Amino acid sequence: MLFERIRSKGLAHFSYVIGDKNQAAVIDPRRDTEVYLKLAEKHGMNIEYVFETHRNEDYIIGSNVIKEKTGAKIYHSDKELDYDYGNAVEEGMEWMVGRLKIEALHTPGHTEGSKSYVLYDPDGSPWIVFTGDALFAGDVGRVDFYGEDRAEDMAGKLYDSIFEKIFPLGDGVIVCPSHGSGSVCAGNIAEREWTTVGLEKRHNPKLQVEDKEEFIDNVAEMLEYPPYFEEMEKQNLNPPSSEIGTIEFLDPLEFKERAEDALVLDTRKEVGFGAAHIPGALSIWEEGLPSFAGWFLPYDRPILLVDESGDPSKAVTYLHRLGYDNVEGCLSGGMLSWHMTGQESQSIDTVSVQKVCSILDAERPSFLLDVRPEEEIEEEGNIEGAHEIHITKLPERMDEVPEDKPIYIFCGSGLRSMTAASILKRNGWEDLHVVLGGLSGWSSTTCPVD
Amino acid sequence: MLFERIRSKGLAHFSYVIGDKNQAAVIDPRRDTEVYLKLAEKHGMNIEYVFETHRNEDYIIGSNVIKEKTGAKIYHSDKELDYDYGNAVEEGMEWMVGRLKIEALHTPGHTEGSKSYVLYDPDGSPWIVFTGDALFAGDVGRVDFYGEDRAEDMAGKLYDSIFEKIFPLGDGVIVCPSHGSGSVCAGNIAEREWTTVGLEKRHNPKLQVEDKEEFIDNVAEMLEYPPYFEEMEKQNLNPPSSEIGTIEFLDPLEFKERAEDALVLDTRKEVGFGAAHIPGALSIWEEGLPSFAGWFLPYDRPILLVDESGDPSKAVTYLHRLGYDNVEGCLSGGMLSWHMTGQESQSIDTVSVQKVCSILDAERPSFLLDVRPEEEIEEEGNIEGAHEIHITKLPERMDEVPEDKPIYIFCGSGLRSMTAASILKRNGWEDLHVVLGGLSGWSSTTCPVD
Amino acid sequence: MLFERIRSKGLAHFSYVIGDKNQAAVIDPRRDTEVYLKLAEKHGMNIEYVFETHRNEDYIIGSNVIKEKTGAKIYHSDKELDYDYGNAVEEGMEWMVGRLKIEALHTPGHTEGSKSYVLYDPDGSPWIVFTGDALFAGDVGRVDFYGEDRAEDMAGKLYDSIFEKIFPLGDGVIVCPSHGSGSVCAGNIAEREWTTVGLEKRHNPKLQVEDKEEFIDNVAEMLEYPPYFEEMEKQNLNPPSSEIGTIEFLDPLEFKERAEDALVLDTRKEVGFGAAHIPGALSIWEEGLPSFAGWFLPYDRPILLVDESGDPSKAVTYLHRLGYDNVEGCLSGGMLSWHMTGQESQSIDTVSVQKVCSILDAERPSFLLDVRPEEEIEEEGNIEGAHEIHITKLPERMDEVPEDKPIYIFCGSGLRSMTAASILKRNGWEDLHVVLGGLSGWSSTTCPVD
Amino acid sequence: MLFERIRSKGLAHFSYVIGDKNQAAVIDPRRDTEVYLKLAEKHGMNIEYVFETHRNEDYIIGSNVIKEKTGAKIYHSDKELDYDYGNAVEEGMEWMVGRLKIEALHTPGHTEGSKSYVLYDPDGSPWIVFTGDALFAGDVGRVDFYGEDRAEDMAGKLYDSIFEKIFPLGDGVIVCPSHGSGSVCAGNIAEREWTTVGLEKRHNPKLQVEDKEEFIDNVAEMLEYPPYFEEMEKQNLNPPSSEIGTIEFLDPLEFKERAEDALVLDTRKEVGFGAAHIPGALSIWEEGLPSFAGWFLPYDRPILLVDESGDPSKAVTYLHRLGYDNVEGCLSGGMLSWHMTGQESQSIDTVSVQKVCSILDAERPSFLLDVRPEEEIEEEGNIEGAHEIHITKLPERMDEVPEDKPIYIFCGSGLRSMTAASILKRNGWEDLHVVLGGLSGWSSTTCPVD
Repeated sequence: MLFERIRSKGLAHFSYVIGDKNQAAVIDPRRDTEVYLKLAEKHGMNIEYVFETHRNEDYIIGSNVIKEKTGAKIYHSDKELDYDYGNAVEEGMEWMVGRLKIEALHTPGHTEGSKSYVLYDPDGSPWIVFTGDALFAGDVGRVDFYGEDRAEDMAGKLYDSIFEKIFPLGDGVIVCPSHGSGSVCAGNIAEREWTTVGLEKRHNPKLQVEDKEEFIDNVAEMLEYPPYFEEMEKQNLNPPSSEIGTIEFLDPLEFKERAEDALVLDTRKEVGFGAAHIPGALSIWEEGLPSFAGWFLPYDRPILLVDESGDPSKAVTYLHRLGYDNVEGCLSGGMLSWHMTGQESQSIDTVSVQKVCSILDAERPSFLLDVRPEEEIEEEGNIEGAHEIHITKLPERMDEVPEDKPIYIFCGSGLRSMTAASILKRNGWEDLHVVLGGLSGWSSTTCPVD
Repeated sequence: MLFERIRSKGLAHFSYVIGDKNQAAVIDPRRDTEVYLKLAEKHGMNIEYVFETHRNEDYIIGSNVIKEKTGAKIYHSDKELDYDYGNAVEEGMEWMVGRLKIEALHTPGHTEGSKSYVLYDPDGSPWIVFTGDALFAGDVGRVDFYGEDRAEDMAGKLYDSIFEKIFPLGDGVIVCPSHGSGSVCAGNIAEREWTTVGLEKRHNPKLQVEDKEEFIDNVAEMLEYPPYFEEMEKQNLNPPSSEIGTIEFLDPLEFKERAEDALVLDTRKEVGFGAAHIPGALSIWEEGLPSFAGWFLPYDRPILLVDESGDPSKAVTYLHRLGYDNVEGCLSGGMLSWHMTGQESQSIDTVSVQKVCSILDAERPSFLLDVRPEEEIEEEGNIEGAHEIHITKLPERMDEVPEDKPIYIFCGSGLRSMTAASILKRNGWEDLHVVLGGLSGWSSTTCPVD
Repeated sequence: MLFERIRSKGLAHFSYVIGDKNQAAVIDPRRDTEVYLKLAEKHGMNIEYVFETHRNEDYIIGSNVIKEKTGAKIYHSDKELDYDYGNAVEEGMEWMVGRLKIEALHTPGHTEGSKSYVLYDPDGSPWIVFTGDALFAGDVGRVDFYGEDRAEDMAGKLYDSIFEKIFPLGDGVIVCPSHGSGSVCAGNIAEREWTTVGLEKRHNPKLQVEDKEEFIDNVAEMLEYPPYFEEMEKQNLNPPSSEIGTIEFLDPLEFKERAEDALVLDTRKEVGFGAAHIPGALSIWEEGLPSFAGWFLPYDRPILLVDESGDPSKAVTYLHRLGYDNVEGCLSGGMLSWHMTGQESQSIDTVSVQKVCSILDAERPSFLLDVRPEEEIEEEGNIEGAHEIHITKLPERMDEVPEDKPIYIFCGSGLRSMTAASILKRNGWEDLHVVLGGLSGWSSTTCPVD
Repeated sequence: MLFERIRSKGLAHFSYVIGDKNQAAVIDPRRDTEVYLKLAEKHGMNIEYVFETHRNEDYIIGSNVIKEKTGAKIYHSDKELDYDYGNAVEEGMEWMVGRLKIEALHTPGHTEGSKSYVLYDPDGSPWIVFTGDALFAGDVGRVDFYGEDRAEDMAGKLYDSIFEKIFPLGDGVIVCPSHGSGSVCAGNIAEREWTTVGLEKRHNPKLQVEDKEEFIDNVAEMLEYPPYFEEMEKQNLNPPSSEIGTIEFLDPLEFKERAEDALVLDTRKEVGFGAAHIPGALSIWEEGLPSFAGWFLPYDRPILLVDESGDPSKAVTYLHRLGYDNVEGCLSGGMLSWHMTGQESQSIDTVSVQKVCSILDAERPSFLLDVRPEEEIEEEGNIEGAHEIHITKLPERMDEVPEDKPIYIFCGSGLRSMTAASILKRNGWEDLHVVLGGLSGWSSTTCPVD
C-alpha cells in the first residue's frame, strides 16, 4: 500500500499519490510529474486515475501530462462547464485503487465545482479526506473568486461543505489539503502539515464560530488577485501536456543582446542583487518565485535568468509550474562572467538597521516605504512614519513614492523590499535603500537615544 | 519546521525526526543513523535530543550512535534501572525543539517504563503523540514480556495508558507508533501508516471493549518470543555506538574455506535457492531477514552471505539492526561464480500446486508440512491432512517430521517453506519439496477430480 | 572543460561528451539521452553538435532525440545517401566547441562512410581521436557488412584509415572508440577502456602485420549477422526521436491473458528460471539482453517481461536501445505472485558438473550440446563428444538435436545454455538439463575415476 | 575490471581506483574516502592496497582512513625515514590486483622518495603510469621543497625520473598524475585531464629542452610555500584516520558569541560579501578554499562559517582535506537571519570597471592594488600605475598599502580581490573598493577618452 504526500516547495502545494496492488492514483498533480511516475514505477504500480479537487488558479495542473504518459483517466469538477478534457465528478462516485475505495464529496465554496475525495482504509472505514482548497490546516479556502457579489453566497456553501460534509466523517479522519503554510491560496495556513478533522474543529480559527453567519462574516472578504490567476484558470481548462525543456546558457554577450527584448529576472538574494546587477533586472529571490513571479512577470515576453544557485532548473521549474514557458535562457557563468567581460552593472544600496537609526535621526527628510501587506503589518507591528504600499500594489501606486528623496524600503526581512526596489529602479527611481533584516531586524534593535 | 517519519522496511519500524529553527530531535532511532543526520543537516538543524519510547527488544536502538556523532542528549525509560547511558524520563517532563514543545507521558503496559511523547503544535495544542509500542494502528503492544504471571497486570496498565492517557488528548490527535504492518511486535497492525486517536478509538479491534476486563482478557496472552529478543534487551542497556563496517567479498575458494566454521546464509528467493545452493546453506529471503534472522541466526559464529540482489549492504544492514555484527563476508560473483569454479551445490525440489494435486491423489504416502503460525492458519484456512508446525518452532519440533517420506512443505507463498526446507536439509532430511505459491496458490486452484 | 565517456553497459557502447565554455558536443549518443542532457546542464553547457562516426547497426542512435530537445546540429556520414536527417560530413570539416577544435577524418572500412573525429587540445595539438568502429582497443572494426565480395576491399580501406589516417596523429594521441570489451561489433576488444595510438600500434593483434595484404587476410572474414542489425540500419536512416515510455505492471491474470499473443521474456538468472518459469517463456538474463535480444526477440509481436531485478526499467532500456518499443508490460510481483495465484509453471533441470560426471559414466546414452561460438571453443577448450551449435544458430539448426535423449547443455557459465534450453523447450523438447558453471565449472573439476 | 579517476575539485587533485576480480587498490586517496569505499563495494571488490606516490604537502592523505575501514595495506615512499605507518616501497616491487600487475618505479625529484606506479594491461604490456607529482599534463613537479641549495640537484633527479624512467615506457602509455589544472602544486598544468607519455614528450613546455642542464635551468626555481604545507607534511607522517564530523548550526546569537574567539570565514562570492558581511569576516569564496584557505586560516583557533551555498558540508570538506578540523559551526539561516536579528554588518564597496575609469581620471589620488601573482600579471597584462602585491604576500607586506587613500583592488575577476579587501579591512583599512570583473573586465572595456 502506498500513500505519499508530495510537497512542492515555494508553491506550498501538496499533491498525493495513493496506491495498492499494481494500481495508483494521484490527487492534484503539479506540472512536473516525474516524481509521480517514478514513485509509481518504484512500487510497481500503474497510475490509473488523476483526481482534481478543483480548477486551480495558482498553478498549472499536471493531469494531461500524466495522462499522456500513462493513459490515466482524469476526474475533475462537474461545475465548470467549459473543460476540454477529462471526466466530470459527481458526489457519490466511487473508484477502487487496489483494495482502496475512494469516494467523491461535493464540497463547493472555494469554487462552485470543488470536490473532496474520501479515502477508505482497506478495512472499510473513512481514513483520509483530500479537501483541496476547501479546508486547510488552520484556515479555509478563499471564497472571492466569483466577485464581491457572490462572496457571501460562496462562504455559505463553504460552511456547509465543511460542517456538513467533512466534519461528519469523524474527528479522527486525516485531512489532506492542497496547500500548506506559505501558500498564496490562504493567508494563515498553519505550519502543521499533518492535521485531522478533530484538530481543525478545535483549533482552526476560522471554524471557531457560533453559526454560519459568523463564519460568513469572517470569511467573505475580497483578497488579492494576482494577474497570473486568470492565466492559470484559462490554461487549466485544458492544461498543457508539455514538459519542461532544456535550459539555454547564454554567454554575457548573447545575454546582453537578447536582453534588449526580454525581461531580466535575477534570483539571487537581496545583498548580492543590491551590490551589482544587470541594468533593468527585476529581483525575485529563488524561493520567492512561486509567490511573486505571477505578480510581476509577463507571459508574452522572453524572460532571461540570472541564477547563481548552481541549479537554474529549480527556478525554471518554479516558473514552469506557473505556466511561464517563456524562460529563454540563463546567464552562463553568473554575474562573475558578466563583469569579466566588462559589462556594466547597477547597484542598489543596502543598509543595516543600525544605519537607519542614524538616518531617521538626521534632519534630511527621507521616505520610509513599507511594502508588507496589511495583515502582516497588523500582526508584526508597523514602523512609525512609514508609507505603506503592499508590494503587489506597487506597480499601480508607484506615484505615491517621491522621486526626490532617499527612499528606505522595509519588508519583513529584506527580500521583498529588494524586489520592490528593483521595480522602482526599473521605473526611474534612483535614491533607493533596502533595509537589511527588515522589520524583524528593526524590532531586534534599539536605536540609541541621543 | 520538520516532521518526518523514517520507515525501516522489513523491521516495519517507524522512527521520527522533528525539528524547528536549528534544533531537531529523533524518536526511537535505528542503528544505521545516517538518514537522521543527513535529514538534520539538509534542514540546517542540530540533533539535540533522542527520545526512546521504551527499551526495545526487536532491534538495536541507535541512540548512542547519534550521541557520539552529535552530542545529543538521550532520554529513555525511568523504570529499567540498569541502563548504562542516557537520562531517565518522568511523566510531565518537557523539552523545547525550536518553538515545538514535547511532553512525556508515562504509558506503561508493553513495558513498565514505556513512555509516550506528545508533540504540541507551535500554536500550543496537542498535535501528535508518539506512542511507541503502546498503541499501533489497529493493534496494541504485547504485554507478555514479564511472563505469564504479570501479563494481566501489564494489560491493565496498558488499558489505563491508552484509555486514560492517550485518549484524553483528543480524537483529532495524530498517533505515531514505533511499528507498522508486518512488525514482529504485534500480529495485526493495520496497513494505514497514518492514524489518529479517533480512528483507533473507533476501529482498532483491541479497543472495541466494554471495559478494562474485556480488554485484559483479549490482550493478556503469551506470544512467541524469538531468541534474539534477549540479546536485544541486553545490548539495549547500553546500545553500541559502532557503525556498519565494510563488506568483504570472498571468491568461491575463500568462501568455501571460511564456510567451514561459519553459517552460510542465502538471501535469494525460494526458486533460485531451491534450484541450487551451497551445501548447508540456510535460506532466508532478503525481505524476510528482519522477521526470521533473529530466530535462526547465531551471534557467536561467523555468518557468510550469498546475496544476488546487487546490493549486499541491504542484507548486512538488516542484520546489523538486529545486532548481528558477525557477517564476515559475501560470495563474490554469486552462485554463478560458485558454479564456474566447479564447486558442488545442492538443490531442494520446488513443485507447483498443480503437481501437488496429483501427488495427493497418488497412493504413495507423503507428509504435508504447514509451517504457518496458528493465527494465519485460522484466518486463511488450513490444508486437510497437513501437519502444522510454525516455522519458528521447527528447530525444537523437528522430530515430528518423518525422515522416510516425501515432505511437501507449505506456507503462504513459498518463501518461509523454503526457509523451513533448508533447516530440515541442514539436519539430514532429503526428500523435501517446497510448494510454490503456498496456500495462496493452492486456494486459487482446484485439484481436478478424477 | 568537459570530457566524459558514457558507458552503456551490456551494449559495451561508449559515447562521449566534450564541452568548453557554454558549448558541448556528443559523439555517438545512445537513445536514452538524459545522461547527456543532465551532464551538459550540470556544467552550464548547451549541446550544439551531435557527431556520428557511422551508421550504427547495433543500436538506435540518439541523435534525433537530442536534436528535438536542444536543437543541436547532427553530423553523420556522407556516403550513405539515403539519410533522412542531419548533415553530411566531409574530411577536413572543422567545428569549434568553446576553445576546442574538432576535425573530421574520413576513415572508411567498417562502413563506406565511417568518420573519425580528432579533438585538439586548447593549445592546438591533436589530443584525442574518436574512432567509432574503425579502431578498438585490441581489435578493429568488422568489414563484412557489404557482403563477402567486398570484404577484402573494405579491409583494405580500413588498413588505409588506420595506418594512414589515425597512426600519423602520433603515438601519444588517445583513442576513443565506440565500443569496449563485450561488444557484438568485434570479437576481441581488450578490456583496457583507455588506450592510445601507441598502445594499439604495439599491442593490437590485428595491427601486428607485415603489410596491407596480411592485414586484409586477417580481417576480411564474414562474421555473424544478427537479424536485428537490419532493423537498426533501417531505423538509423532517420532514427526515432521518441523516448522510453511508462512500464505497465500486469497482475498475473492480466499477464496470462495478454501472454497469449505475446512473447514472454524472463530476465532472471539461469537457476531461478530453471526452477520455475511461465510456460513458453524465453530466458535471457538481464545482462545478456544487449547481446542476445536482437537474435531472438521479434519486433512485430508484444513482449511481456518477467523481471525480478527490482528495476525493470533497466531491461526495458536495454531493449529500447535495440529499437524494441514493443515491451507491453511486466509481471507485477514477479513469479511469487504468479505462483500465489495458482498459475502453472514449468521447470528446466539444472545440474552440477559433478552430477554430469556420473551421467557421462552411465550407460544411458545422452546428448551433450555445446552452444558456445567456435572461437570460444577454440580458446577455452572443447568437451569431448559434445555436439556444437552456437546458440545464435540454434533456431535454424534445431533439428540436429535429438528429441528422444536427455540433452545436457553447456556454455561458458550456464547463462547462455539456459537461453538455449528455453528455446528448445518452446519448440517441444522436454528432457533438458542445463549444466551449472558450464565449461568453466567443468574445467575446474575432475570427474572421479572409478 | 575497474579503472576510475576520482577528481577532487578545488584541490585539482586526482586519485585513482583500480580493480579486478574482487580486489581493488587506491592511488593517493584523499581524506574523505567514502567515494572509494562505495565504488569498491558497488563492484564487489575489497580494497587491498593503498599506494602513495609521495608524501603530500597540499592535502591530508586518506590512507589511514581506508586502512581503518578495510584493513588495506599502505605503501609509501622509502626515503622519508620518519613515517609512522605503512610500508616502504622500493623500485621494482610488484603487486597483483586480480589479473593486473602494478610495479613501482623510483622517480625522485619532487621529493626524494617520490614513486611512480606502472599498471600493466591484463595482456602484460605497460598501460598506465601513475606519476604523482613528477609529471603532469603540461608541467612537472616543483623541486624546491628542500630549499634553494638543493633545487638544482632535485631538478636533475626529476629530469632522470622523467626522461629515463617514464619516457622509456613508451609514447602510448597513459599518464595519470596526482593533479590537474588549477592545482597549487604546479603553476601551469594543462587542462587536458587525460594525457600520455607521447603527448607530454611532444607538448609539455618544460620537456622541450636540449639537455638536462636546460631542464634544470627552467625548473629549479623557488616557488611560493603556503604556511599550511608544513602542517600537511607533519600530519602526513602518520595521517589521521578520523573522518569529518557533524556540522553544528548556530543561530545568530550563538554565532555572535562564539565568534569572539573565532575566525569568521565567509564563503559567498565577492558581491554578496561586499554588500554585507559580519564585522571581521574573512572572505574566501567556496571554490577558492582549496587554494587560499591554507594561506590565511589558522589551525589553532575555531573557525565559524557563513555559507549560503545550501550545502555547507562542501566547504567543510574542502577544509577538512587541508587538515582543518577546527570548523566549529555554521551560521544558521545565513546572513538573512543575521540581519533579521538586528545584528550589525559591514560592507566593502564593489565598483564596476566603468566606474574605475572615471576615478582614474579624477584628480583625487587613489591607490591601485593588484593582488595577482607575477606570472599572471606577465601573461595577462598589468595595469598602469598599479601597486603589485600577490595576495599571498599581503599579510606581510600590508604596510605598503596607504591608509589615507581610497584603495582600488584588482585581481583577475574580483574574487581574490575581495579576499584581499577582507584582510585589509580586518587590519583597519576602511576606504576599500573591489573592482568587479577584475583585469578581465578591465581588458574588455575601453575607458572613454574625454
